[in-house]
Amino acid sequence: MKDFQYIDIANRIELMINNDTYPLGEKLPSLRVISEHFGVSVGTSLKAYGLLIDKGLLAAREKSGYVALRKSVGQTPQPMASTATPAVREISVSSIFSKMPVDAGPYPPGFLSFFNASLETHMIPFNAVRRSLQKASRDLTGTHLQYESTLGNQLLREQIARLSFYWNGSLSANDILITNGTLEALNLCLRAVTQPGDTVVVGSPCYYGILQSLEQLQLKVIELPCDPTDGILISQLKYILSTFDIAACLFISNFNNPNGVSFSDEKKKWIAEMAHQRQLPVIEDDVYGELYFGPSRPTTIKTYDKQGWVMLCSSFSKTVASGYRIGWSAPGRFLEKVSQLKATTNVATATVLQLSLADLLTTGTYQRHLRKLRPLLHKQMLLTSQYITQYFPAGIKISQPEGGMVLWVELPERVDALSLQHLALEHAINIAPGPLFSSTGGYRHYIRISCNKQWNRQVEQAIRKLGQLISSF
Amino acid sequence: MKDFQYIDIANRIELMINNDTYPLGEKLPSLRVISEHFGVSVGTSLKAYGLLIDKGLLAAREKSGYVALRKSVGQTPQPMASTATPAVREISVSSIFSKMPVDAGPYPPGFLSFFNASLETHMIPFNAVRRSLQKASRDLTGTHLQYESTLGNQLLREQIARLSFYWNGSLSANDILITNGTLEALNLCLRAVTQPGDTVVVGSPCYYGILQSLEQLQLKVIELPCDPTDGILISQLKYILSTFDIAACLFISNFNNPNGVSFSDEKKKWIAEMAHQRQLPVIEDDVYGELYFGPSRPTTIKTYDKQGWVMLCSSFSKTVASGYRIGWSAPGRFLEKVSQLKATTNVATATVLQLSLADLLTTGTYQRHLRKLRPLLHKQMLLTSQYITQYFPAGIKISQPEGGMVLWVELPERVDALSLQHLALEHAINIAPGPLFSSTGGYRHYIRISCNKQWNRQVEQAIRKLGQLISSF
Repeated sequence: MKDFQYIDIANRIELMINNDTYPLGEKLPSLRVISEHFGVSVGTSLKAYGLLIDKGLLAAREKSGYVALRKSVGQTPQPMASTATPAVREISVSSIFSKMPVDAGPYPPGFLSFFNASLETHMIPFNAVRRSLQKASRDLTGTHLQYESTLGNQLLREQIARLSFYWNGSLSANDILITNGTLEALNLCLRAVTQPGDTVVVGSPCYYGILQSLEQLQLKVIELPCDPTDGILISQLKYILSTFDIAACLFISNFNNPNGVSFSDEKKKWIAEMAHQRQLPVIEDDVYGELYFGPSRPTTIKTYDKQGWVMLCSSFSKTVASGYRIGWSAPGRFLEKVSQLKATTNVATATVLQLSLADLLTTGTYQRHLRKLRPLLHKQMLLTSQYITQYFPAGIKISQPEGGMVLWVELPERVDALSLQHLALEHAINIAPGPLFSSTGGYRHYIRISCNKQWNRQVEQAIRKLGQLISSF
Repeated sequence: MKDFQYIDIANRIELMINNDTYPLGEKLPSLRVISEHFGVSVGTSLKAYGLLIDKGLLAAREKSGYVALRKSVGQTPQPMASTATPAVREISVSSIFSKMPVDAGPYPPGFLSFFNASLETHMIPFNAVRRSLQKASRDLTGTHLQYESTLGNQLLREQIARLSFYWNGSLSANDILITNGTLEALNLCLRAVTQPGDTVVVGSPCYYGILQSLEQLQLKVIELPCDPTDGILISQLKYILSTFDIAACLFISNFNNPNGVSFSDEKKKWIAEMAHQRQLPVIEDDVYGELYFGPSRPTTIKTYDKQGWVMLCSSFSKTVASGYRIGWSAPGRFLEKVSQLKATTNVATATVLQLSLADLLTTGTYQRHLRKLRPLLHKQMLLTSQYITQYFPAGIKISQPEGGMVLWVELPERVDALSLQHLALEHAINIAPGPLFSSTGGYRHYIRISCNKQWNRQVEQAIRKLGQLISSF
């Protein structure tokens, strides 16, 4: 009988999570406390927590024990696999955007925007950034005010190369080119391997910034359906590659924006090998990779890249501050071409900001900040998800990302997300409507909700108001 | 008799300039000193200096009196009008560049590069920049670390708008978009008004960075011959516009890089009116406009633009520090399209550097720095020109720019500039060979010499060595 005691313990804990005794995102009692309280061995406590982990209700977190993830009651299902039909399409996101109210901030008091997927002020390591900027400007030399090398500052490139250790990569400083943010990195990579009129394969739904860039570069897309648990459907990708003339693939492999989907290691490996076999450039956007909620950094497609066909892009916009505008690319065998394009686009990236960022990395401030940021984001996401479940009408579906900072919400089919946005704006609330995330204006009844808000009564009220507006359709 | 005394005085001064009693770039005696010394009225002294100004031997300079410009003996003629044949051409500057040794700095000790047209350390307002950066990072708020508006920082745009007063323009902050340097501004403007395969008219010779950008954007060029005194030949431009299908013009209207030529006000006005009449976008690169040696800021083509067909681009790379990477564009009627392209290329430019630059402008530090920088550049240019005349073989021709920081030197026809560069590098000297400045590899016996060096014995020796190498052909 005692063998099953761990199940009783697990049930007790589950009940307490459902009751909000242990609110979502909060630390649970340690294994030692559980053992003492129930008079069982630490092994039994471990089995109890293991059971709850298997159910997806809690997570073990590096150095800070166990954390409540979600409730087992009122659990909202995830959106289905996306169902894009494989066809070459022109992109017309700009026309949707041009009809959309601009959401650039700063916002009037009382305005609540769930639109932008960027760190709000309370999540930025503000004092550390300021200190590092002051240090960088104090230590400035005349050389720092002349043209930086096109590849970027050597110190920063060395630090970025070291980060590759965590995703089982082995970059060196010489593999890396610094850019003004991820989008510039993606643009340079796209320009390096495509011609206007070419077709690029992307995952669906796809971040609107990528779609807009593709549109401006006069590229066409094929959108690839995604499985919510492990990413793009390989069978579909195989079909597309054998049917269409494809110039490149562009994937967000970890915590896809907007639907939070991550590719399994097997898929990442398969894609890297396919890229080599077909000599097909794969551009990988890993801008959310560092914002994992699990115990360890996910790998990348680049992890499995042996021959330089994978062009990895990322930045510090989602981890440190979007205003830094410092990104990078490790474009493999295309480094020289990407570097040429960088030189003729804006010569190089400003040195001062690179020095400041290199300082944050060298001193370990960056890693310490991330160790605080990840659980904070996770908690905000769990709370947002919980309140959406509570206030939105029944039948909706919510993504369950293991990282990043956005939720993808499938609304009842009768709801038009673009109309919803207009309605919401009248109540000083903004959301990102689904049609932004497709070349065809699809995802009409989907919205993306950013979880970058410090949770308070006003945020809860805004979610509640959104729920009312949705019910009014 | 006394009426002609001013001629005697002028002759005496001229002799003393030729004798190096008053070295080039140095201040001459004030009008009061001349009057007292020769026992004449200030009016007579003024007439004497007026005569020398007419001969081009000296210049009146704002607040600092009169300065020796050049000698009347051994005067080197200017290069002839450039003679590009009007034809649509593909650009192949990259292939020349790829065979060329990289000149990115930092240089080994003893290495002397006349290649880059950028401010060397002694010309950068280093302490002011450092102070403004420290101030900007001290005053930083959380908002500054989030995405800047795509148009750029409002404070900086207001300051740039005010600068337009000096070139008889009337920009407002809302006309301006901040970029990462001039080249990014030019790229965005080109992308806004052209399609790959289109043809763009440029002045010849043309800055290689522009040719490379055009090449990467898959644009073709027609190179337009230039008169050394007042810029592109209008008759040729008329012929080209009526013969070929042109998508845009791109001109450096002031102190063209490399040949230093400026357009007359009449030409600027004609071009602005032509742009309107033909509804043809004219992209204007005015990156050297602030570096005038004369008494006042030259106008721009934009000065005469009433209908928004002129897209003005500039930056602070040549005036404050190239490492800032802050440029701007006032793209007239194409602002929305340019702004869309900026958003999809790298979202926005980093805020901190914009704040620092806005501070330099607001406090007047920028203008004070320029008042020192202009005569310094002028002096360096005059000295470089003088020593080139002294050490290079007879028969060469040197440009006489009224601003900027480069000299364009026509060598004897037997000299191959690309071979000369290789020879020079063996002696730790670099120069920019003429073929970089044409789509067809023309200007084979031309070189561009940057005058950004603090004059010293080593620089003189390098010019002398170059002269020897040229004679060896």
